Amino acid sequence: MSSTQGHVIKCKAAVSWEAGKPLVIEEVEVAPPQKMEVRLKILFTSLCHTDVYFWEAKGQTPLFPRIFGHEAGGIVESVGEGVTELQPGDHVLPVFTGECKECRHCKSSESNMCDLLRINTDRGVMIGDGKTRFSKDGKPIYHFLGTSTFSEYTVVHVGCVAKINPAAPLDKVCVLSCGISTGLGATLNVAKPTKGSTVAVFGLGAVGLAAAEGARIAGASRIIGIDLNPSRFDEAKKFGVTEFVNPKDHDKPIQQVLAEMTDGGVDRSVECTGNVNAMISAFECVHDGWGVAVLVGVPNKDDAFKTHPVNVLNERTLKGTFFGNYKPRSDIPGVVEKYMSKELELEKFVTHRVGFSEINKAFELMMKGEGLRCIISMDS
Amino acid sequence: MSSTQGHVIKCKAAVSWEAGKPLVIEEVEVAPPQKMEVRLKILFTSLCHTDVYFWEAKGQTPLFPRIFGHEAGGIVESVGEGVTELQPGDHVLPVFTGECKECRHCKSSESNMCDLLRINTDRGVMIGDGKTRFSKDGKPIYHFLGTSTFSEYTVVHVGCVAKINPAAPLDKVCVLSCGISTGLGATLNVAKPTKGSTVAVFGLGAVGLAAAEGARIAGASRIIGIDLNPSRFDEAKKFGVTEFVNPKDHDKPIQQVLAEMTDGGVDRSVECTGNVNAMISAFECVHDGWGVAVLVGVPNKDDAFKTHPVNVLNERTLKGTFFGNYKPRSDIPGVVEKYMSKELELEKFVTHRVGFSEINKAFELMMKGEGLRCIISMDS
Ligand SMILES: NC(=O)c1ccc[n+]([C@@H]2O[C@H](COP(=O)([O-])OP(=O)(O)OC[C@H]3O[C@@H](n4cnc5c(N)ncnc54)[C@H](O)[C@@H]3O)[C@@H](O)[C@H]2O)c1
Ligand SMILES: NC(=O)c1ccc[n+]([C@@H]2O[C@H](COP(=O)([O-])OP(=O)(O)OC[C@H]3O[C@@H](n4cnc5c(N)ncnc54)[C@H](O)[C@@H]3O)[C@@H](O)[C@H]2O)c1
Ligand SMILES: [Zn+2]
Ligand SMILES: [Zn+2]
Ligand SMILES: [Zn+2]
Ligand SMILES: [Zn+2]
Repeated sequence: MSSTQGHVIKCKAAVSWEAGKPLVIEEVEVAPPQKMEVRLKILFTSLCHTDVYFWEAKGQTPLFPRIFGHEAGGIVESVGEGVTELQPGDHVLPVFTGECKECRHCKSSESNMCDLLRINTDRGVMIGDGKTRFSKDGKPIYHFLGTSTFSEYTVVHVGCVAKINPAAPLDKVCVLSCGISTGLGATLNVAKPTKGSTVAVFGLGAVGLAAAEGARIAGASRIIGIDLNPSRFDEAKKFGVTEFVNPKDHDKPIQQVLAEMTDGGVDRSVECTGNVNAMISAFECVHDGWGVAVLVGVPNKDDAFKTHPVNVLNERTLKGTFFGNYKPRSDIPGVVEKYMSKELELEKFVTHRVGFSEINKAFELMMKGEGLRCIISMDS
Repeated sequence: MSSTQGHVIKCKAAVSWEAGKPLVIEEVEVAPPQKMEVRLKILFTSLCHTDVYFWEAKGQTPLFPRIFGHEAGGIVESVGEGVTELQPGDHVLPVFTGECKECRHCKSSESNMCDLLRINTDRGVMIGDGKTRFSKDGKPIYHFLGTSTFSEYTVVHVGCVAKINPAAPLDKVCVLSCGISTGLGATLNVAKPTKGSTVAVFGLGAVGLAAAEGARIAGASRIIGIDLNPSRFDEAKKFGVTEFVNPKDHDKPIQQVLAEMTDGGVDRSVECTGNVNAMISAFECVHDGWGVAVLVGVPNKDDAFKTHPVNVLNERTLKGTFFGNYKPRSDIPGVVEKYMSKELELEKFVTHRVGFSEINKAFELMMKGEGLRCIISMDS
């Protein structure tokens, strides 16, 4: 039993006081975990574009002050009432979409959108009592995605915690807590390209490159990467992307460029940008008859996906996915094992590392489109 | 060898001279079949809503004078050069979407959108030489969907002809030439409901009721029929539809009504209306996580399918299909056998019969929303 169990922990957290303003490292209070909750000591966290969208709060609901962060690895500090599967010392990845194991979604082989613990970007409180576990000087600080990993300690629902092999290096497998699993699963579990097929990936950030990695693992013969940022193309070469297209280099709609490159359209496409026009292009660029497009990017509140219904009628399929359709507790331990057995390489996704006090640098890198994942070490 | 082989045949055809104006039975000339073409004697034809849309030409490209008709049964009169699979006397169903057996689509197990012979609603000529086979007083009359079955004789590409069991009664199995196969296949081949699931069918015309029949065959436990025309509900009871919803009876969007009836949404939906708002509702009414919506209705030229991308991201699937994904030559003989072995009932789809001279009555019935299929006998 840890000495902190049952007590409020005072620790450092990077607090967002206002939309788009640099985070401030503050001393905050983290309440003990309540029923079915777990308190985690975060060791490593990284930045995913979803954090940036809600921090910028352009086209998203603003909720401040808030502690962002949802891609991380840590160790269980203490558990609340009713938690039997986890105990202090377990190595875990917190996940933004949970698995209660009881609802229709958790029982369905097709869905990972748990009724109780599915992603909720607007909620800033714990689902048990509608309150926050974070405060500063008695004033609540809101949670983000039920994870809030930009804090030395955080409280998470037990259903949002994947217990993993303690031998796995948390400074690497932490990226499986969101982006890399999302992209990988979007291809392997949802788009399901067959051997020899052509796959287009829109957006070559970490999520998109993980989708490309999935296409490579599935045996795709052509992997076409599309990005507005040409500096992405160099990195992408390490991920099996065979061709590059920058929409800025073309006057025609990019779906038309792709159709011409591929005799009518790609077999599969995976959209990892969050831009609604890229979503529409990703759908319209798949071949009629058999093409499947998968949306992964998080859209703005007021976006509209718009296409001529004949594009659907022509036997194209449109799908979407959260977290690559992985069920976090059931499936993520296995994805970690793929890394342990060297089937899956994670090192190439980690392009930068900073200490916790420099967390704003990670935001700057992502906004400039530099690198893929920046790992933030909580202890420095 | 028939005495007409190689000669122009003079016969009766119902010609559409102008959009929305009654068809006129005229004596027309039907040229002999050219390379890879077949001339058919049509015995029975029926009317599908797609004929009506292009005859009305509201929101569709007008092309007149034209001979409509694409749901029919007949007998091969003669064959053109290169046709080896068919011979005079064979019983056949012409189909608006063909199968060349050579292209990527024909070779793919997922698609029936043959590169050579896929549906083309704007083309009014034969693909071989870009000319019509119909004329009156030397002036060409355009084809429709490559079938033009509102004529005693018609010329069709060999790839658009399914050879069927000669024992099958053509006055019944003719409805498998379009509508019934389309609806049945949309459910069985595309939506694929599992046993016990809930299926919504939008539009309870013949296509929609065939989709409902597919849901019943697949073992769906609830089949919810949605139509604006309450007179459809009586007929629908014979087709296993268990519940009825008329959007006119509700103030809220129909997708919300369905979500409330089904604890969050139906498992599968099949849209058979041609109305773009029904298409959007059919998509948005499926359950997140696992729901699949299939579009079948033929939209207007300027329609836009519009939804919030989060509806896709929430793990819904959107698909479309022509002819229920059946490959006409490979699959339709088997669907006819399903009728012969009494697995599939066709009688209940046939609510009216008229002679060829009364063909405009069939149009009136469909425009009034009365009955399902009206069979037109060519010999009376
Ligand atoms: N569905 C999920 O479960 C899930 C999980 C994680 C992330 N996401 C979302 O996935 C997306 C990618 O995340 P990331 O962390 O890799 O972000 P990132 O910023 O590292 O990468 C996004 C890339 O998309 C490119 N891009 C933007 N607009 C484009 C356009 N119109 N055409 C082509 N390329 C374009 C950018 O240049 C960038 O390289 C984000 O929208 C994020 O919110 C979704
Ligand atoms: N994809 C294909 O291969 C294919 C093949 C055949 C027919 N079709 C199309 O399928 C559709 C149905 O054909 P049909 O012959 O059964 O037509 P139909 O006119 O007999 O039936 C259509 C039904 O839809 C109902 N409807 C119209 N708008 C509606 C709305 N907004 N909400 C609910 N119900 C509505 C009508 O009241 C009618 O009962 C048509 O659009 C037709 O063009 C497509
Ligand atoms: Zn993320
Ligand atoms: Zn659940
Ligand atoms: Zn039809
Ligand atoms: Zn073909």
